[in-house]
Amino acid sequence: MSARYKLWYWSDLQGRGEFVRLALEAAGIGYDDCARQHGAEALLDDMERHAAARGPFAPPYLELDGMVIAQVANILLYLGDQHHIGGATIADRLWLNQLQLTIADVVAEAHNVHHPLDGNAYYEDQQDAALIAAAAFREDRIPKFLGYFERAAEANPGEWLIGDRWSYGDTSLFQLVEGLRYMFPKRMAAIEGAYPAVLRIHDQVAALPGIRAYLESDRRIAFNEQGIFRHYPELDVAGDKRA
Amino acid sequence: MSARYKLWYWSDLQGRGEFVRLALEAAGIGYDDCARQHGAEALLDDMERHAAARGPFAPPYLELDGMVIAQVANILLYLGDQHHIGGATIADRLWLNQLQLTIADVVAEAHNVHHPLDGNAYYEDQQDAALIAAAAFREDRIPKFLGYFERAAEANPGEWLIGDRWSYGDTSLFQLVEGLRYMFPKRMAAIEGAYPAVLRIHDQVAALPGIRAYLESDRRIAFNEQGIFRHYPELDVAGDKRA
Repeated sequence: MSARYKLWYWSDLQGRGEFVRLALEAAGIGYDDCARQHGAEALLDDMERHAAARGPFAPPYLELDGMVIAQVANILLYLGDQHHIGGATIADRLWLNQLQLTIADVVAEAHNVHHPLDGNAYYEDQQDAALIAAAAFREDRIPKFLGYFERAAEANPGEWLIGDRWSYGDTSLFQLVEGLRYMFPKRMAAIEGAYPAVLRIHDQVAALPGIRAYLESDRRIAFNEQGIFRHYPELDVAGDKRA
Repeated sequence: MSARYKLWYWSDLQGRGEFVRLALEAAGIGYDDCARQHGAEALLDDMERHAAARGPFAPPYLELDGMVIAQVANILLYLGDQHHIGGATIADRLWLNQLQLTIADVVAEAHNVHHPLDGNAYYEDQQDAALIAAAAFREDRIPKFLGYFERAAEANPGEWLIGDRWSYGDTSLFQLVEGLRYMFPKRMAAIEGAYPAVLRIHDQVAALPGIRAYLESDRRIAFNEQGIFRHYPELDVAGDKRA
């Protein structure tokens, strides 16, 4: 790797790009977070430049020596292979990709909570629908997904999702817990104790030197109401209201 | 490959499983569509059996010699490598995976059209919300996604998405067109002519011997209102109503 990665993602939010940033930071891989350096206009220009040839549908995407890689799980699959932060065997690679794709499903559903009707409209204009979508997500989906990742963590005899060292699946699981805690603090406080292996991995990732340094730096953008995981107090309830 | 693949997916609908079925059928790879042979109860039992060790979050999943692979894009990545229906170079593999993941995004959004508020509730109980979600999907999202795939198809000098022979990306693009036509016949009739390269690939896939035989067989389940692409006439409008 002589060239330096260019990461293109929105400059003022964590969003889907954060899963890529975390893997790069944990591994100590140098990268330019281009839109943070050059602005959102530069991101739109860059996407336009790639539109005719194997371009991204949407950010985030990674560029290296002219090759563009988009879709979070795809970027992480590539980084996993290149930098040994993925699976080493075919079985481990497929399993890790499967877990990452399931995290991507949670992310899409979390976004749908605050934008159930129209991704291009304001939250405030679909708030009534969001109240219903949030209840279903909080009560049915969070426990189902976290229960799945708990079993995934337990299935590995080591301390991480695969093998005996961290992989991009672990940094992604960390971010999922962080995001859900920010979005639904009451709900998560009420239920997260049921997922000790997930929380253990979260804490282990937080303690990785690269992640610790990143979280303390100004490269880590704070959660806000532009990203995927948004805190709208009216959408957060601790218990099972619908039951 | 001495063992025979076991595919596990719901027995009465195309859904996400159809993307896997189509790739297998086009390539002439033998498989047992287990739930169609043994029923939905057997599928639930089988998932339970895998719950403790690298099991699926949800169907579809493929089993071979005890290894379970879930998530459509992950299954297709594996089949692509094993059966030479994916990319041969790293760049082609990543690009094809990126396209498949973008198709997965359309699929998730299409499902959200008829279930914007709660995936576990009936369509009839969220129909008002679905009317709004459908308008956004029809008018903003379908053109944006199809425009992207049109450019992807044009980016390849050959007749397919990559190289000069079909890959799983082509069979998936075929299914996307089929599904959108079933779900939104008026809207698609009005706009699909703007995407000639996408339609050309659709027609080429339909003419593949394995696909032609499959579509004429009783292995191809008809589209219905259990799957991802559902036809609810009230959700389909030809023009841009909101504009």
